[in-house]
Amino acid sequence: MDSNEIDGDRKASAVVGTPDAGPAENTLQNTSDKVTIAVDAMSGDLGASTAVEAAKSITRKHSDLRILLVGKEAELAPLLGNHGDSISIHHASEVVMMEDAPAQALRSKKDSSMRVAINLVKSGDAAACVSCGNTGALMAMGRFVLKMLPGIDRPAIIAAIPNLGGHVQMLDLGANVDCTAEHLYQFAVMGSALSSAVDGIDKPKVGLLNIGSEDIKGNELVKEADKLLELARTNGDLNYVGFIEGDQIYMGDADVVVADGFVGNVALKSSEGVAKLIRSYLKKEFTRSPLSKVMGLIASPVLKRLGKRIDPRRYNGASLLGLRGIVIKSHGSADALALENALSIARLEAKKNLISLINTQTETRLIQSSA
Amino acid sequence: MDSNEIDGDRKASAVVGTPDAGPAENTLQNTSDKVTIAVDAMSGDLGASTAVEAAKSITRKHSDLRILLVGKEAELAPLLGNHGDSISIHHASEVVMMEDAPAQALRSKKDSSMRVAINLVKSGDAAACVSCGNTGALMAMGRFVLKMLPGIDRPAIIAAIPNLGGHVQMLDLGANVDCTAEHLYQFAVMGSALSSAVDGIDKPKVGLLNIGSEDIKGNELVKEADKLLELARTNGDLNYVGFIEGDQIYMGDADVVVADGFVGNVALKSSEGVAKLIRSYLKKEFTRSPLSKVMGLIASPVLKRLGKRIDPRRYNGASLLGLRGIVIKSHGSADALALENALSIARLEAKKNLISLINTQTETRLIQSSA
Repeated sequence: MDSNEIDGDRKASAVVGTPDAGPAENTLQNTSDKVTIAVDAMSGDLGASTAVEAAKSITRKHSDLRILLVGKEAELAPLLGNHGDSISIHHASEVVMMEDAPAQALRSKKDSSMRVAINLVKSGDAAACVSCGNTGALMAMGRFVLKMLPGIDRPAIIAAIPNLGGHVQMLDLGANVDCTAEHLYQFAVMGSALSSAVDGIDKPKVGLLNIGSEDIKGNELVKEADKLLELARTNGDLNYVGFIEGDQIYMGDADVVVADGFVGNVALKSSEGVAKLIRSYLKKEFTRSPLSKVMGLIASPVLKRLGKRIDPRRYNGASLLGLRGIVIKSHGSADALALENALSIARLEAKKNLISLINTQTETRLIQSSA
Repeated sequence: MDSNEIDGDRKASAVVGTPDAGPAENTLQNTSDKVTIAVDAMSGDLGASTAVEAAKSITRKHSDLRILLVGKEAELAPLLGNHGDSISIHHASEVVMMEDAPAQALRSKKDSSMRVAINLVKSGDAAACVSCGNTGALMAMGRFVLKMLPGIDRPAIIAAIPNLGGHVQMLDLGANVDCTAEHLYQFAVMGSALSSAVDGIDKPKVGLLNIGSEDIKGNELVKEADKLLELARTNGDLNYVGFIEGDQIYMGDADVVVADGFVGNVALKSSEGVAKLIRSYLKKEFTRSPLSKVMGLIASPVLKRLGKRIDPRRYNGASLLGLRGIVIKSHGSADALALENALSIARLEAKKNLISLINTQTETRLIQSSA
């Protein structure tokens, strides 16, 4: 861990409190060296015990981490038990449901675990928040409470996807279904900043997701976005490597892949589907006869390692990029292992001062591009 | 093989020659019980020997099949040797290159193997044609020579994708990058007809590819297409099952998945990428140590079966739907096994009178919907 990682939460909170960010509410800012993460403990499909278990596990591994479990105290306290000061409970009386309309949740659930977790980021009491809840409500509350970074029109969902080179950061994974070329350009700038900060890549290779028949060079949207990105490449603002086809996502040809939210979501979900299909084939083939079962037993150390590689829980946790604070969306059905992965992402982004870095990069690049 | 399958090529050719289809050139129509398939033998990356090998292999398996190898006789004759009457050579002096612009190829390469193969379908000498060449040129020539079916604006690319239930037919896989809701509706009707004909499904479940966050119900295009499809469901014209997310493609929730060509292509290519990634993981894990290698050897019968299941060659061959004739696009890099699969698809579509069936269904359904 390098020295840049020190005081991650202080700096991240400081960004929240820049003059641009509206009233500075971060007077309660955490001044210890610890990184504090607020977890919406009530929103996962598997119940509050998952959040408690994930918090216990990750704080055992990272002594610099403090978890605020946000939710109903009466429910959380017995689950937590006596656990020292690395985990504490922050009471919130309401819960946003999966079926709640985002606008409705925003208006009426002001004391929900989700809203309070975001408020804790705004106030500087937490450097990041994580929720397994309703994506639409999380985005609406995130935008309302934290506001957007200057120059960014919409939040985008970004996540690390495994590939031959390790992983690739892909955005937008579903926050924006009807994008303009300018939106894609903003996604590229934010994605590049995240890849630099979190993956430590100096000039991340940014690709634009497209289709590649010989004659058909994509739809109008990607053609226009390509022009903007090409300009940024010429200016030295982005290491834009051009179009990336769906299969190249997995080949390590880019560090960041940009797509509109509809296409990005379809790519992600289709990929999940294939992985699930192949896992089911593996299981079927290794159980179809007593002999296959024996072979499976013999090969089980290898199959376990393979299983780990294609375990989607190891990639759980997507960042809502573009907000003036770190908000991580975990899968609704996340178990403790998956949720812990989302918490690790939150921790890393906080320690790397992600928001501050994005802010610097978007300020320079988006102002240059509009000049 | 049921009695409906008899005389597949005669009936398919008859459709080409309906009054709607322009001048009936099919005077040379094949009147034997055999199905004749024209293969553009010059267009694959691996050379003409691949086409010859695939032709030899498939004609050994199907005595009802006759293959016309279209291309340079001087090159093909030595490769074919003395092979009886199930395979013959049809000379064509030119070759469409991958880098040829479709419009240019259409104008200037009138004696190319691709164009001549399509001409043979138009004239009724072949019931179907297969090419590994330039997709854009194949579409342009297909439209120009064969024309569109009534009520269909654009050809769509459809292919079978493996899933938990066996396979699903997905379209459009990249022919149309900027679609209207009406185009998606036409794709649905054609896809449903193909699924009935080729897969023998009575009322194929048709799904519309979408993304499924709680609040975001897709982009404008899918919302509009959903309305049209919902109407067709109410009328009993289509067994429309609503939105399908990317991962559901692989779960067997639909028999036909409809998407615009950009999204469909991204879904397909991303899926191919993941499958490739997992194959590479498998290989890596089973070769990382001498012990892993031994385990791999022991488990090799199972791994081979798995390899077969996820072998993309077994799914090679996409149909250009909407034309007044059967045109199959094979992958450019197809080897003999992959090309043979594309030939099997051509054979099946010819035997099932696909064009005639689509024509009937589109006539009824598209006229009803526009009335």
